[in-house]
Amino acid sequence: MKKDPTATRTKIMNAAKTLILDNGFGGTTVDAVIERAGVSKGAFFHHFSSKAELGHILVKRYAENDAQHLDETLDKAEELSDDPLQQLLIFVKLFEQEMRSLEDPFPGCLYASYIHQSELFDDRIKELIRESMLKWRIRVKAKLEEVVENHPPKQEVDLESLADMLLVIFEGAFVLSQSLKEAKTVAQQLAHYHTYLQLLFEEKG
Amino acid sequence: MKKDPTATRTKIMNAAKTLILDNGFGGTTVDAVIERAGVSKGAFFHHFSSKAELGHILVKRYAENDAQHLDETLDKAEELSDDPLQQLLIFVKLFEQEMRSLEDPFPGCLYASYIHQSELFDDRIKELIRESMLKWRIRVKAKLEEVVENHPPKQEVDLESLADMLLVIFEGAFVLSQSLKEAKTVAQQLAHYHTYLQLLFEEKG
Repeated sequence: MKKDPTATRTKIMNAAKTLILDNGFGGTTVDAVIERAGVSKGAFFHHFSSKAELGHILVKRYAENDAQHLDETLDKAEELSDDPLQQLLIFVKLFEQEMRSLEDPFPGCLYASYIHQSELFDDRIKELIRESMLKWRIRVKAKLEEVVENHPPKQEVDLESLADMLLVIFEGAFVLSQSLKEAKTVAQQLAHYHTYLQLLFEEKG
Repeated sequence: MKKDPTATRTKIMNAAKTLILDNGFGGTTVDAVIERAGVSKGAFFHHFSSKAELGHILVKRYAENDAQHLDETLDKAEELSDDPLQQLLIFVKLFEQEMRSLEDPFPGCLYASYIHQSELFDDRIKELIRESMLKWRIRVKAKLEEVVENHPPKQEVDLESLADMLLVIFEGAFVLSQSLKEAKTVAQQLAHYHTYLQLLFEEKG
């Protein structure tokens, strides 16, 4: 059987991600990653020079997927309606539907996992996490600015922190979902964000 | 100078808390705690049999303070108004004011720190965190049930997850506040929860 180096690399990264979400980066050893991935030490160090390098590449991959997920979901919402408010509501509803389908508590967010051990990481990694979070702020805030042009809010509201609230709800709901071992927390909380946006911006029938 | 054993114990616990919030439990060694607290190894092991025991006592103290803070803030709000809705709004506003006064990002929540390394802790600790979080749900939900008796919500809403939303916002805002190095995040997000409650329950003037 020919070995596929990309498959091995992916296997190591997936094993490391699972372990880090359960044990934290500081509580995860290279030996544990090797054992879980079912690869040799040689294979590990062929792909990654150190645990630190693995940690960096892992969060880079996570951030790329996260940004892509954000963009794709917003694109999809924009295709489904011409009205910025409806686009925003659909955007939140798409995430809610996705989270509603979970059978187990959400496994957690790598950004939050790293931030809870922030002193173990260098500034490059902290900056990457910061920029990834700011992408959410920028995209959602831009949409909110389109919304208010035609839908004045019922109550004075700060658009930047209202944009941040989506990520706040994801992050906070992940923590509660894990702590309470309840799978539906994230979907329920996104439903509240959806209702809040409706109450703020929707005209009364 | 006479040694005060309680002071030493508190010094160790405070040093450990700070280190755990920065490095995680897995990334915090007994040696680092000793160094930060400025105590001897002997003093440490006089007070705590192990790092695991320290971790348990630390989260127990944290949970006691957290429950007391919740109760006191709710008592205060209940003294300031007779109307359940106003009590609830004041309750949220009191937390918002407290968080508004922060000059630095909130240092973080020990529950979330532990949950992000949950496999390092035994079931007793996970159960303690679960029960602490459920206290918030129970207290806030009971207040919401009083609210809806006289203030029917403008839109159908699930009271249990609406109660959870307060803790979700705290936890999520702590993560963003830390990641973005912004001190006002928690206050801003609590302000949105306040506005959401107003839009849901307040009669239009």
